[in-house]
Amino acid sequence: MHIDILTLFPEMFTGVMESSILKKAQDKHKFTYQLVNFREYAQNKHQKVDDYPYGGGAGMVLTPQPIFDAVEAVKKERSSKPRVILMCPQGETFTQKKAEELVQEDHLIFICGHYEGFDERIRKHLVNDEISIGDYVLTGGELGAMVVMDSVIRLLPNVLGNEASAPQDSFSSGLLEHPHYTRPAEFRGMKVPEVLLSGDHGKIAAWRKEQSLKRTYERRKDLLNNSKLTIDEKSIVKD
Amino acid sequence: MHIDILTLFPEMFTGVMESSILKKAQDKHKFTYQLVNFREYAQNKHQKVDDYPYGGGAGMVLTPQPIFDAVEAVKKERSSKPRVILMCPQGETFTQKKAEELVQEDHLIFICGHYEGFDERIRKHLVNDEISIGDYVLTGGELGAMVVMDSVIRLLPNVLGNEASAPQDSFSSGLLEHPHYTRPAEFRGMKVPEVLLSGDHGKIAAWRKEQSLKRTYERRKDLLNNSKLTIDEKSIVKD
Repeated sequence: MHIDILTLFPEMFTGVMESSILKKAQDKHKFTYQLVNFREYAQNKHQKVDDYPYGGGAGMVLTPQPIFDAVEAVKKERSSKPRVILMCPQGETFTQKKAEELVQEDHLIFICGHYEGFDERIRKHLVNDEISIGDYVLTGGELGAMVVMDSVIRLLPNVLGNEASAPQDSFSSGLLEHPHYTRPAEFRGMKVPEVLLSGDHGKIAAWRKEQSLKRTYERRKDLLNNSKLTIDEKSIVKD
Repeated sequence: MHIDILTLFPEMFTGVMESSILKKAQDKHKFTYQLVNFREYAQNKHQKVDDYPYGGGAGMVLTPQPIFDAVEAVKKERSSKPRVILMCPQGETFTQKKAEELVQEDHLIFICGHYEGFDERIRKHLVNDEISIGDYVLTGGELGAMVVMDSVIRLLPNVLGNEASAPQDSFSSGLLEHPHYTRPAEFRGMKVPEVLLSGDHGKIAAWRKEQSLKRTYERRKDLLNNSKLTIDEKSIVKD
């Protein structure tokens, strides 16, 4: 996979792209990336990328020309058909399902705005997807792009080692994970539940399933509605 | 405000903390931060911070000792009462409302795990809040902490300049923003809607309200249910 990231703040990406899973995945030649400052594509004397909104109002709007030209330039660099993703609060809310969809692509292009809105023509005529990572206001699209990249790249084959076991993660199963405990069995008077020390694998599995359902019920009822529960699981929820 | 960030990957934060709004806010003395690698608090020969889960299963679990000790150490450094936040998929889903709540605090402590789960005793006895930034799987809590910090810090008084107008942002108003357009009036044959060039402020305001409602209806019906619409707005949605 190749990823192009169009941003006015390329320096924001260094720490994240060169650590942890994103670094490991590059070392394993699973993906490459390029940071593109679309200001360099602005065809005006002062390399301005924004302008006042038509119809008035506060805030500036990113003009179409530099972003259209930057996307076209990175498209020309390779033969793969890219998927162009605009990070913005008006986009569809990002989910694990979307990550599983994007990991199928060979080439992603992220467009990250900053402060300003995007000229609507970018939205309508240049991008394939508009993505928001959640219902909160961020200063730019950069953190969103990093979040999407992390969640997608870790799904590429052989990127995750044993240290991170994808299938059991929350949101993959549709339920929140059960509680975890590790040594010591007692820490400052706080004890590990007896069942986990029992060695009885049947009991442990039952306890974990119950805890997972209980936690989901208490914290995220909405997930229960979306997940396919067995009759057995439904009766636990009822209790 | 002061923020302590407990992480095994402090190097992930550099680019984000030293750019854009987070940098500006520091230059204006609005907040300070400290990166704390909690591995340094591990009281064992090899500075191990994780161990196998009781009851078996894949993946490792972060042990309580280093995290308890690191939190206590940073608490001791200042007199303010901190709010301790665990970034994890089982937490409450982060929203703009939560950002507005957290910006009232003087001292935040973020605990970021990586790969592993947390020993349940950390969750139960050490933290005030568990936060998830969305329903997708990330490799660690670091990106989540950056997202929460960006959304909180930009709400501190006098951090945002005119370039970013907080009140009109999506999620503050409960509706998605209307489309924006800027110069040129025609770009590669794509035109700006006539009404925005009309100079008729009444018409422009009406168009924008309609577009904002329409966009919210088409993309995020769930937001309409939560927002208080006027009778006028309700009739637009009906149409």
